[in-house]
Amino acid sequence: MREDKEIKKHCPCVSEIITRRLSLYLRCLLMVNREGDEYISSRELAKRFHLNADQIRKDLSYFGTFGKRGVGYNIEAIVVKLKEVLGLTHVYNVVIAGAGNLGIALADYPRINRDSFKIVALLDRDNRKVGTKTKTGIPIYHISELEEKIEELNVRMGIITVPVDAAQNIADRFVESGIRGIMNFAPVRIQVPPYIKTISADFKSQLEVLAYYVSKLM
Amino acid sequence: MREDKEIKKHCPCVSEIITRRLSLYLRCLLMVNREGDEYISSRELAKRFHLNADQIRKDLSYFGTFGKRGVGYNIEAIVVKLKEVLGLTHVYNVVIAGAGNLGIALADYPRINRDSFKIVALLDRDNRKVGTKTKTGIPIYHISELEEKIEELNVRMGIITVPVDAAQNIADRFVESGIRGIMNFAPVRIQVPPYIKTISADFKSQLEVLAYYVSKLM
Repeated sequence: MREDKEIKKHCPCVSEIITRRLSLYLRCLLMVNREGDEYISSRELAKRFHLNADQIRKDLSYFGTFGKRGVGYNIEAIVVKLKEVLGLTHVYNVVIAGAGNLGIALADYPRINRDSFKIVALLDRDNRKVGTKTKTGIPIYHISELEEKIEELNVRMGIITVPVDAAQNIADRFVESGIRGIMNFAPVRIQVPPYIKTISADFKSQLEVLAYYVSKLM
Repeated sequence: MREDKEIKKHCPCVSEIITRRLSLYLRCLLMVNREGDEYISSRELAKRFHLNADQIRKDLSYFGTFGKRGVGYNIEAIVVKLKEVLGLTHVYNVVIAGAGNLGIALADYPRINRDSFKIVALLDRDNRKVGTKTKTGIPIYHISELEEKIEELNVRMGIITVPVDAAQNIADRFVESGIRGIMNFAPVRIQVPPYIKTISADFKSQLEVLAYYVSKLM
């Protein structure tokens, strides 16, 4: 109950859509920053990354004003603020259940395992994989060690890449072990308590959405 | 210009959010159908797959009424209708640019390569991979053959899993070769003409959205 109230207090302040935009602005600003620029206007930012300048101004205005007339936004100041708002001021340890092609691809995917996220373990039931490491050095443990590793490695986020019929069981075990955010690649809707955030990344469903648009053009 | 008008005529009728829901209903109904049931009520469907019964009734009512009072929906009739609405009545040939871990994982991912989608080729610049096939038998061609393969294999949808700095070039080549729907896994926003539909599947950005929620619970 206490947990439920906590969520009501915090979560509605930024919707998922806005969160996605803020995450995108952060990515773009970090790119600009790496090139050495200190300031950027909403118009330049919009032009360069094909965004909407009015939307940028509106979104960023929620978090105080950093824009100077004629100069633009102080990039470092917004980056700090965006990271704070997005909860990216510390590192999240992440486990991946399922060390198939996809699990391994995710674990080794460039740029995932940097800054705010650290993929600390893959878990699989295939004994031939258990005890080995991915190319970038992420260890694969047996799926029976899931609870133990989540506690030991202080994990709060989990990725599911196991087959459909194992997905709900993994989700249950994730939740019971203290994981609070789940990214699910299995093409099935998993059931979790209301205080757990899930993101579904079902490729086939995304392809179907594309197909809808493409079919109208043929 | 003609193309633009065509889109205006067709596309606004079902929004992306509804399309995603319809795609999900289709998945659920196909599962129920495989078990041999002929009818299902919106309430049962909602309960079983954790959906909203009112929403189901509302969404499906757009496409005519298939529900019988006390019996429910005729599953086969809705499946046919949903496939028609979603443009899934024929097979889409798909190419994947980038035969790294992710490209290969996608090509071999269970259930993607079935029904409405056929991944016909991977394209890569690594000569060691060119000429080989994935586990499920999808051939890998040299990236220089992209235009040729798209035409030869009658491809209208493309998936980008190349590194960030190559993504825009691939998108341009896709569009020029006649591809109309792009699923982009590179963590960058690609620029395409307005009549091209793109879906961004940037993992890191999705993890950041998760992090936002998880951070509120810690």
